[in-house]
This record gives sequence, C-alpha cells and structure tokens, in this order.
Amino acid sequence: MKFILPVLALSLLSVSCVSTAPTESKAPKQQQDSQQAVGAPQNIIMVIGDGMGPAYTTAYRYFIDNPETTEIEETVFDRHLRGLSSTYPAPISGVVTDSAASATALASGVKSYNGAIGVDVNKKEVQTVLEWAKLQGKKTGVVVTSQINHATPASYLAHNEHRKNYNAIADSYIDDGIKADLYFGGGWKFFLREDRNLVNEFKQAGFHYLDNYQGLADLPKSKPVLGLFADVGLPWALDDSNKHRLSTMTKAAVHHLTDMQQHDNAPDNGFFMLIEASQIDWAGHGNDISDAMAEMDDMAKTLEYLEHFVEHHPDTLVIVTADHSTGGFTLAANGKYRWDAEHLRTMKHSVNYIAKQLAKNEISADYASDLFNFKLTRKEMKLLITTKDSPKLNKSTNIYQNKKNSPVERALLKQVKAIMDMRTNSGWTSGGHTAIDVPVLAFGKQSDLFNGAQDNTDIAKKIFTLLGK
Amino acid sequence: MKFILPVLALSLLSVSCVSTAPTESKAPKQQQDSQQAVGAPQNIIMVIGDGMGPAYTTAYRYFIDNPETTEIEETVFDRHLRGLSSTYPAPISGVVTDSAASATALASGVKSYNGAIGVDVNKKEVQTVLEWAKLQGKKTGVVVTSQINHATPASYLAHNEHRKNYNAIADSYIDDGIKADLYFGGGWKFFLREDRNLVNEFKQAGFHYLDNYQGLADLPKSKPVLGLFADVGLPWALDDSNKHRLSTMTKAAVHHLTDMQQHDNAPDNGFFMLIEASQIDWAGHGNDISDAMAEMDDMAKTLEYLEHFVEHHPDTLVIVTADHSTGGFTLAANGKYRWDAEHLRTMKHSVNYIAKQLAKNEISADYASDLFNFKLTRKEMKLLITTKDSPKLNKSTNIYQNKKNSPVERALLKQVKAIMDMRTNSGWTSGGHTAIDVPVLAFGKQSDLFNGAQDNTDIAKKIFTLLGK
Repeated sequence: MKFILPVLALSLLSVSCVSTAPTESKAPKQQQDSQQAVGAPQNIIMVIGDGMGPAYTTAYRYFIDNPETTEIEETVFDRHLRGLSSTYPAPISGVVTDSAASATALASGVKSYNGAIGVDVNKKEVQTVLEWAKLQGKKTGVVVTSQINHATPASYLAHNEHRKNYNAIADSYIDDGIKADLYFGGGWKFFLREDRNLVNEFKQAGFHYLDNYQGLADLPKSKPVLGLFADVGLPWALDDSNKHRLSTMTKAAVHHLTDMQQHDNAPDNGFFMLIEASQIDWAGHGNDISDAMAEMDDMAKTLEYLEHFVEHHPDTLVIVTADHSTGGFTLAANGKYRWDAEHLRTMKHSVNYIAKQLAKNEISADYASDLFNFKLTRKEMKLLITTKDSPKLNKSTNIYQNKKNSPVERALLKQVKAIMDMRTNSGWTSGGHTAIDVPVLAFGKQSDLFNGAQDNTDIAKKIFTLLGK
Repeated sequence: MKFILPVLALSLLSVSCVSTAPTESKAPKQQQDSQQAVGAPQNIIMVIGDGMGPAYTTAYRYFIDNPETTEIEETVFDRHLRGLSSTYPAPISGVVTDSAASATALASGVKSYNGAIGVDVNKKEVQTVLEWAKLQGKKTGVVVTSQINHATPASYLAHNEHRKNYNAIADSYIDDGIKADLYFGGGWKFFLREDRNLVNEFKQAGFHYLDNYQGLADLPKSKPVLGLFADVGLPWALDDSNKHRLSTMTKAAVHHLTDMQQHDNAPDNGFFMLIEASQIDWAGHGNDISDAMAEMDDMAKTLEYLEHFVEHHPDTLVIVTADHSTGGFTLAANGKYRWDAEHLRTMKHSVNYIAKQLAKNEISADYASDLFNFKLTRKEMKLLITTKDSPKLNKSTNIYQNKKNSPVERALLKQVKAIMDMRTNSGWTSGGHTAIDVPVLAFGKQSDLFNGAQDNTDIAKKIFTLLGK
C-alpha cells in the first residue's frame, strides 16, 4: 500500500553522532556511522501481540470489565489506539500473512513470502530495526513468551530462508554476531543441544545465563543476559507459576537495559526492545478463547507497566501492534446476539491442562466443576464422560502446547473448548490466520506518527526514520 | 466506556445565533434558541456502513485492488481512518448490539436496548443530532438503501419502542413533525398503504415526490423532497439499474440541500445529512460475500464523491462508521492462508438473482458460467445440478432480499454462496451480528476530533458539541 509518511521526514532531521561499540565480543558484520534523528525518542519499545486482531482487543474489554459496575471500562488497548495496519505479505503469498513474513515486514519494512525470516522474496538479507538500533549504539533486548528463535523474534535477529530452521536460526544468534544485550523467553531445546551448546557459547561471550523467573530479580548490572525459561514456549499463562510472566520479564528487562547503559559510563544512547505476547496466536490456532484472554491479560499488564515507565521516562516511544489475526475469532456466533466473558474471568487452568486432568482422573461433577471453576451442566458433564468413554479421533491443530496429547486427551480438549465456546458464544472459522487489519497503538514521544491507516512495512520505515536511517 | 472527550469543549465555545424556522408545515414539537459552536463545520455528513466491521473494510482493499499492479492500492477507507468505536448496547442487551440500539447511540449519545428506536432503556424519547441540527436552522437529509423507516434512519428521525413497528415509525415521520428536508431510499410498502397514504401527506406538506432515479436529475430547488425507489429496500447494488445508487442519491441530495439553502435567501446554516449503506449488513446476514463487496463499492464511491465535495466545501465534516459487524465474516477460513477476490470483481448479478435463474432455467455449463461470469468447475456444476434435483430444505437467513424464495431457490442460493465462499475462502460464524469494534473515519473540518478509540455514544456527543449543544 502506498501510504504517505507523515511530516516525520521534515521534522526529524538526521545528524551524525558518535558510534558506540557493541557490548558483545562478536560484533555484527556491518558497522557504520550512527545517525540520530533530532526529536526522536531515546528508547523505542516495539510490542507485538502475535495473532491479536481487533476481535481480541475488543473481547479483552468485555473480559476485563468489572461486572460490579454498569459502565464498561476503557482498557489499555483503548487508551492508546492510533489506527489499523494492513498485514498482507509479498504477492507470491496472497493476502494472508504468516508470522514470519509479517514480522519481517515489521522489522525491516520489506514485504516477503510466508516463512521468510529477515530475507526478501529473493532470499536476500534485509536489515532490521533492531540491527540498525544496535549499530547506533543502543542497547537491544528481546522478550517473548515463545522460544526466542520463533518466527517473530527471529525476524528481528536473524536471516533465514525458512522459519522452521529453528536450530540454524539459534546458531545464527551466535554465528552472525550477537545482536541483543538481553534475551528472555523459551528455547532450551534449541540452545542446549547435543551437537551444540549455545548457552555456553553465550556465556563465553560474556553473558549471564538464567533459567528461572526467580533469577530475574537479581541480574548482574554489567553483563548482557540470556534467560531461557522453558524447553520451547513458556507454559500457558494460566498454567505458569507466574500468570503475568511477560509483564515480569519486561519489567526486569527494561530495568536491566537501563542499568547496563548507566553502568557502561558511555553516552546514554537508550535502547530498542522487542516484546512479544507470542501465545495469543497459539490460543487462536487452537480456537481456545480461555487461553487467548489470559495471554491478552499478560500483554495488558505489560502495557500498563510500560505506561508507568513512559510516565517516568518520557523520552520513550512504545508502539504496539499485531502481525495478523488468528483463528477467525468472532464475538458471537450461530445467530445469537450474545458474547459472555463471565466464565472466562475465573479460569484457573488452561483448557489443555483441564483436558489432561479429565483424561487421567475420574470425571465427577465436583472434580470437573473444580477444574473449570464453574458448575458444569448435566449436558456438559455428559459430553465429557461420553467423550472419554469413546473418544472420537479428531484432527487437532498442531500447536506446541498440545502436540504430545494422547488421543483421549485430544478428544477431551476439543470438548473442553466446545464448552467454553458455548458458554461464551465465541465463533471461529480457521485453525490458521486471517487477513483482517490489526490495531496499532502508540504512546510516548512521537506517538502521533502512528495515527491512522498504515501498512506493516510503514511501521518499520517510521522506526528507521526515528533511528536516523 | 468512559472516554475523555478531546479538547473540543475548550476550543469550541458555544454562542447564540438566530433560530431559523423549519421549512415544513408541521414543525417538530420542541423549539429552542439555536446554538452554533465557533470553529464548528457548517455541514455535517454522517455516513454509516451498516454491518461494516473491520473485516469488510479490509476485504474491500483486496477486492478493489488492481491486479495489474504489484502494489496494493490504498482505499478511501484507508485514507480517512481515525480509529475504532465500541458498539455494545445497554447492559440489559449484553455486548452484541443490533442496528436499532447502535443507531440510537450514534444518533443520541444514549445507550439503549436492542430494538430501541430513539428511546432510552426506560422507553423515554432521546433527542437526536438530526433533530437538534434541524432546530439550529440546518437543512436535514436522509439517504439510505434500505426503506427510509428501517432501524438506522428511524433512530435519527423517530422514537419508538421497537424497530419492527414499521408503519407506526412511518406515520411518525408526519405525525411528530417532519424532521428532514430530504428523504431518499425505499419504502412504498409503508408509505403507500391502504389505511394511509403518507406520500400524499408529504405532498400536502409541500414536498416534491419522486419514485425513480431519473427524477434525481431534476429536483425543484425550492421544495423539500421525498424519493422512494422501491417497495422495501432497494435492489441489491449488483441487480439495480444503477450499481452505484447510493452514490447517485447522495450527490443529488447534497446538491439539493445546498440549492434549497441558497434558494431560501435566509442565513446559510448548512446541513446535516445521514447516509447509510444499509445492505452491507443484509449481505452479512446472508453470509454473502459477493453482495457485501458490491454494497461496499457503492459506499466507497459515495465517500469518494464526498471527498470531492469537501475539497470544494471545506466547511464540511464527514464522519464514517459502522453500527456493528455482521455475519462473523473472516478473510480466510478452514486453515488455508488464502483470501481471493478475483471472482468477486467480475460478478454481474447478486447471488439471489443467480439462484433464481438457476431454479427457473436448465443448468448448462455455459448458462451457469454466464451467470457467475467465470467458468464453473465440474464439481461446482454437479453441486448445483444435484441441489436442484433434490433440494434439501434449509433454514435461510430471513432477510428481505430473499424472503420470498421457493424451497429450490433457497437450496440453490445456499450452494451459490458456498461456491463463492470456496472461491474466495471466506469464513462466517453467524447469521447475526458480532461485537467487534468498528472503524471510524473522518475527513474535513474538525475531523481530528474522531482520532483514536471511542464509543458509539461519543460520536453523537461530539456531533452535539459541534452543533452547539
């Protein structure tokens, strides 16, 4: 789409400033004079809600609404809404993007094919805003709830012809030069392999390593940090020891990047961070409204913390968007004018956890109602018991969180989700993505630049301009 | 939702000005000193795409895209996007609105129950922006593709406890005082009844009446106008003699209101208009992507004309939104990363027309392909022929445009739509509405007031403030 960039180009004149050496031992290949845009924010924080189309931000408003008041309260997503973004990939992939092509567009400003990680349609590497920020002497950090080499973070950090080359992408985090000062997310499977121990290589490059959330409270101020907290993605928010783990990781990351900058005793060039609420998308693929709302809640708490940070550090810009929407989720279905979040608000466990427990233990009314945290109807009880007695094999969406389920667990999972869909009257049309435009939010310095309709590539282009490119 | 109104209240100070008498013989009951906000636009045009959720504006971009270029071109909906609006009705109706409650909110700033026409939850009349504009001496007009007493226009013009009281609502257009200087849309069934001839009553009140589009070219400058062009709603855009009838009616309406104002030789107080692309919603209820896109195209052409008008009359504000989204429409479905508008672009007939022709005539490959305007596959041909031979009775969504179909027409209509869904990979979850936030566009004077997230009631409140209330 040809959108005209706003007055940015006129109001932000590029001037040269001193380049600061990166902290890591293996520096990125490309080095150049850094540029700083006058009037640009010192810190830029990009937050992506993977799969968070407009139905998700709308649903979250009704999910988080206080039923004790007659008013529907404004959410953090409402407060900072600026417009919408189109998400279509390069023409070869049609108009429905995957996370790789969309993250590549958001990171580099270049449209590519579905599956592309930081490369264009000719598989040629494209520079990302994170790489460029690093070259400008900014600290850089990546905080995600997926594995840190998953499509979205990889598109900011790596260049690979396909997102599924997980090991190669992880390897490139060392081999192509370490590009971030901080990585929080999952990924033992890819970073602690028999053929290669990347965690050790990070340590040898000067990194502090941690593998549990407790360690977040005590990071050494002088060191870059690698925090891996799960084998692949983190547990669902609902099942995690910390239901707001993205918010907790983000807080620690922001503090640490600020501490590192101060400790360096070098010019304070600020930081660039990528934060991703990765598993909104995974819930969408699974057509799973319970986990979608819990992941949205973790993202909302993250944004509320960032509001607080920007209030105290006004030289910061926060941009929030989604790469696409997932699952064809709709608030209401089957001709009924109803969408009801009541039973979502009290969920204590993921639907996958509930299904696994139901498979393992006898399904009594009390036990089932305790798992769901609401009283099941006779019809719902019968559905679960019949399913367990004679599970129909069903194709389940192959997402990490339920990939290893047994047939009976799969069959029960389908029915647990069906109960939540009936309770909420949620609709779904796909196990994949849809092409609907996604919300764009921004707050802090220069946030007006993101007003109105834009393309996902425009978001990268605006950030590059702010970064003086 | 509690959204804070922007600086409007500070920047637009209310000052008294002279009230101008309405043109009609039976004046509205309430009369008061008119108020004019300093800095407010003289003309305000409210455009509602009924059912036009964000999936529809996104789809329209790919529908109207020129496949000869590699770029995806920006649409009129992109150019003027300002934010999103929540649409939830009063708590008694949950979070999924109908057109009546939402139009009442957009017209009056008051949340009400589903079905309410210009009344609050206690069934008490609430003043609408159109009524208030009339009292300020502005000309007023209503241009819709539904009947003119359908929920949306009725919510600006009438007060009734239920939208389905069509005759009573039509009667009130005379009995409660004539509130508009111009009405274009459908409605013979309600205005030319055995028990009452409202058309004659409008004529007796000084109105010029027309019942065909040709008459739009030759409206008497001195007279208010009633134009009814169909029994109930107008034909689908695809089947109408003028596929851009909303655009044509709007152009004539804007010219006529301007002419009337000049002819009056009174102070030029400008006009308030309500324009509704009513049948985007009807296509949504029918899960009918072909007609949805054709109705969107008529709306887009209307907005493009209004862009031209605002360019030449900069003292005008155009606000565009939807009352809700319909059908749970998604761009992509069934796990496939594809949404393809190719065969929508060349459609010559509505799906209902195609179904009726297939029911009436022998289904040959050539005939069917001529109706669809693309070559059907063998599988598609077999589907149609089998359906005609042994039609399965199916519940069809009861919308005006196909209400009188025979069982075989209904069965064929379902399959014709299934073919279009497969060709496009469109998904649907409902024959009703969904609660997703809807786009808000604005252009012209004071259009910045509509930036960001807002509630549908805020839109009315901002308009009231501009109108000095």
